[in-house]
Amino acid sequence: MNDRTITDYLHANRQRHLDEVCAWLRIPSVSTQPQHKADVGAAAVWLAEKLAAAGLENVEVIPTAGHPLVYGDWLHADSGADSGADSGADSSTDSGAPTVLVYGHYDVQPVDPLNLWETPPFEPTVRGDSLFARGASDDKGQTYIHVAAVEALLATTGRLPVNVKFLVEGEEEDGSQAIMRYVAENPAKLAADLCLISDGPILAPDKPKIVYGLRGVWAGEVTVTGPRRDLHSGMYGGAVHNPNQALAELLAALHNPDGSIAVPGFYDDVRPLDAAEREALAKVPYGEAELLAESGVPAAWGEAEYTITERIGARPTLEINGMWGGFIDDGFKTVIPSAAHAKISCRLVPDQKSGEIGGLIEAYLQQIAPPTVQVSVRTRQHAPAVLVPLETPQLAAAVTAYERAFGATPVFAREGGSIGVAISFQTHLKTPLIFLGFGLPDDNLHAPNEKIHLPNFYRGIEASLIFMQEVACL
Amino acid sequence: MNDRTITDYLHANRQRHLDEVCAWLRIPSVSTQPQHKADVGAAAVWLAEKLAAAGLENVEVIPTAGHPLVYGDWLHADSGADSGADSGADSSTDSGAPTVLVYGHYDVQPVDPLNLWETPPFEPTVRGDSLFARGASDDKGQTYIHVAAVEALLATTGRLPVNVKFLVEGEEEDGSQAIMRYVAENPAKLAADLCLISDGPILAPDKPKIVYGLRGVWAGEVTVTGPRRDLHSGMYGGAVHNPNQALAELLAALHNPDGSIAVPGFYDDVRPLDAAEREALAKVPYGEAELLAESGVPAAWGEAEYTITERIGARPTLEINGMWGGFIDDGFKTVIPSAAHAKISCRLVPDQKSGEIGGLIEAYLQQIAPPTVQVSVRTRQHAPAVLVPLETPQLAAAVTAYERAFGATPVFAREGGSIGVAISFQTHLKTPLIFLGFGLPDDNLHAPNEKIHLPNFYRGIEASLIFMQEVACL
Repeated sequence: MNDRTITDYLHANRQRHLDEVCAWLRIPSVSTQPQHKADVGAAAVWLAEKLAAAGLENVEVIPTAGHPLVYGDWLHADSGADSGADSGADSSTDSGAPTVLVYGHYDVQPVDPLNLWETPPFEPTVRGDSLFARGASDDKGQTYIHVAAVEALLATTGRLPVNVKFLVEGEEEDGSQAIMRYVAENPAKLAADLCLISDGPILAPDKPKIVYGLRGVWAGEVTVTGPRRDLHSGMYGGAVHNPNQALAELLAALHNPDGSIAVPGFYDDVRPLDAAEREALAKVPYGEAELLAESGVPAAWGEAEYTITERIGARPTLEINGMWGGFIDDGFKTVIPSAAHAKISCRLVPDQKSGEIGGLIEAYLQQIAPPTVQVSVRTRQHAPAVLVPLETPQLAAAVTAYERAFGATPVFAREGGSIGVAISFQTHLKTPLIFLGFGLPDDNLHAPNEKIHLPNFYRGIEASLIFMQEVACL
Repeated sequence: MNDRTITDYLHANRQRHLDEVCAWLRIPSVSTQPQHKADVGAAAVWLAEKLAAAGLENVEVIPTAGHPLVYGDWLHADSGADSGADSGADSSTDSGAPTVLVYGHYDVQPVDPLNLWETPPFEPTVRGDSLFARGASDDKGQTYIHVAAVEALLATTGRLPVNVKFLVEGEEEDGSQAIMRYVAENPAKLAADLCLISDGPILAPDKPKIVYGLRGVWAGEVTVTGPRRDLHSGMYGGAVHNPNQALAELLAALHNPDGSIAVPGFYDDVRPLDAAEREALAKVPYGEAELLAESGVPAAWGEAEYTITERIGARPTLEINGMWGGFIDDGFKTVIPSAAHAKISCRLVPDQKSGEIGGLIEAYLQQIAPPTVQVSVRTRQHAPAVLVPLETPQLAAAVTAYERAFGATPVFAREGGSIGVAISFQTHLKTPLIFLGFGLPDDNLHAPNEKIHLPNFYRGIEASLIFMQEVACL
């Protein structure tokens, strides 16, 4: 049992680890599309079998009202015992050693537009330094990193430096309702000293980043209804308010010209950024030049009084993720559709109340909607933001893990994305959240050609086990 | 040869006429969808065979760069001869009797949304007084009416009171490019004293209407492009201008709050409505109450200083027929799409130049577009408006035809729809256009459950042959 042995083990098993994560990535576990329900279940079973093979105990595939959860633990830290005989089904730990709850998700985003993928999304392919597949970075690849770390520690040392519980969900991309309920109902079983979450990017392979804030989310659908059936635009146009046009007018009115959100009350509960935090965010080496290079947009957009880093991580946003109405196939059809639709999501910051956002948006749209159409807003999911205090002691272990595995000191940043369950961990388990990301900004999350940078994948396994060793010494 | 004989013939052949038009309606001749190209050709061949069977001569299916034209004629009016031996392939007439060019189209609109059809669009079904099928009213049903009228006259009298030329196209729903070119290149072959067009509705079975103006059309697509690939809205939202939002802002800016079109120059060439015309249009028994009852919208919309009838027939319009961007399937995807799209069409009035509209729209959108996105406009089709002088003598024959076949005196109205080829007839053949419509306002043109009112269908056959008899007497 020494670091040399573990390093040799990781080196000897590089190809097998890659093969294993590819096997998992081949399962099209798209949680929001009903036709993939069985695939989501298959991905859960794959993980449960892998956890057991890695040496975890009490492995379960837990059915829920939605997609299943996968649980497994190893709770013998400081007992000197190998896993096995004395492990208890009650998940109680053998000692006072700290317990790490590892969270991840095995579901993935839809893959459309499919024609833009260079290789099929569910046929993992290595090109250059990257592994391309839907879920490679978000989040099967990053979840697997911790499984491989635990496997390596158990295989080479027969034990773990900390107690570990894995809880991996299958509906992170669909609102995390099941896991949030499960966490609320099972705080004793899931009791831990910290939650470890790997579901995001660092800045570059040599620029690690520790996220200490995650925005919340509200997502829903806006529908504008006009005539009771589609109409011929040549026979009714000019006298009937086209729902496409009415929707465009309403969507355009959701933002002010300065980039702020026009919905009354939207900012009422927003906790202002304090000077110390703005100073810390200003150290993130990311600005308009990086944004333009990464995205290809001709100019940045948004609230001028906030930096790019603040806009994408520390300010609330409202985005139109999809909109459609009328004839959108090839060809042409002179129609006034009976309805038009938009899928909208908001990123929320402390202390916005995610449960109130849908009502604010609906009230505003109803207020500004003309009498010529009808408007409705349906909330689909929501979760509030989380913020990890910068003085949290386990953050130091994360800094060391990055320094030793990646050879660079991480910066601290607030992140734009949302992890619905994080607030549940904070609320019900009362544990610090440590976000140890191994992705990169150009991983094409939620887009064609998603990938993970393979050097990050392998360094991630090292960082994970160093983190566990460091947490044990706190 | 007397009216009694013709009436008996029509009565005896009612079921066969219905069966025949149903056979034609079963062919899914959707001109704008490439997968239906062979079906469009089959519908042309069906018509050619029917024209020949009805007794027309020189029948041709004329290939074009797009879908084929169908031609057939009978040019022996006043010669006393039966059709046959002395007919010439040069399409010259035997006498000074007037020549009627009958126009129609055998192509149809797409059928989506398919799930809203009560019976399949290409399985013609009689329910109550109506025949339901895509193309029943627009325009196979109305085209067939004239074929049946000519057939009845030839079968019962051995001759026609006027010379007749049929020219029926297969891409009216896709811009009429081929027929416009053919008309321009073949004015001698198509020479006529009037063009008879049946491709629109009357007000009600007992309220016939003669259209004396048809709007022109411009149709094209607007594309807003932002990032070079789809982005995760949680990671870039707030700092990148979402193309969905930018498109909504641009589309919302195409109209002024008063319902007028905001594109600079759009109204420059619009010929003002004169007092006599507004007076005539005011007689059309159609207003806000009828509009609301027909369409189901909660309130009318548009230019307040114009009546409903003026807005939908005599004023130019701009409609968003389709728009789409981002994730529009079931489920949810937190994406900022790289592009968003809209299909737009304008109805044009005299003397707007249809070829200039695309440029005006593009110039305006480029001018108001923010630097955060790129905008392009692609013209897909365009045709100017037509207006038939109310003093045109053949309009009197149309009045008589409606009075005798429908038992009511028609009103005169300008119509909102566009028939691209009408301007070609006016320009190259220099003939008056007579619009003899047999549809109804609730025929669901371009929408699910298109139908034709069967009493109108049968009265239409009578009106067509009366019209030809009356034109011969002018």
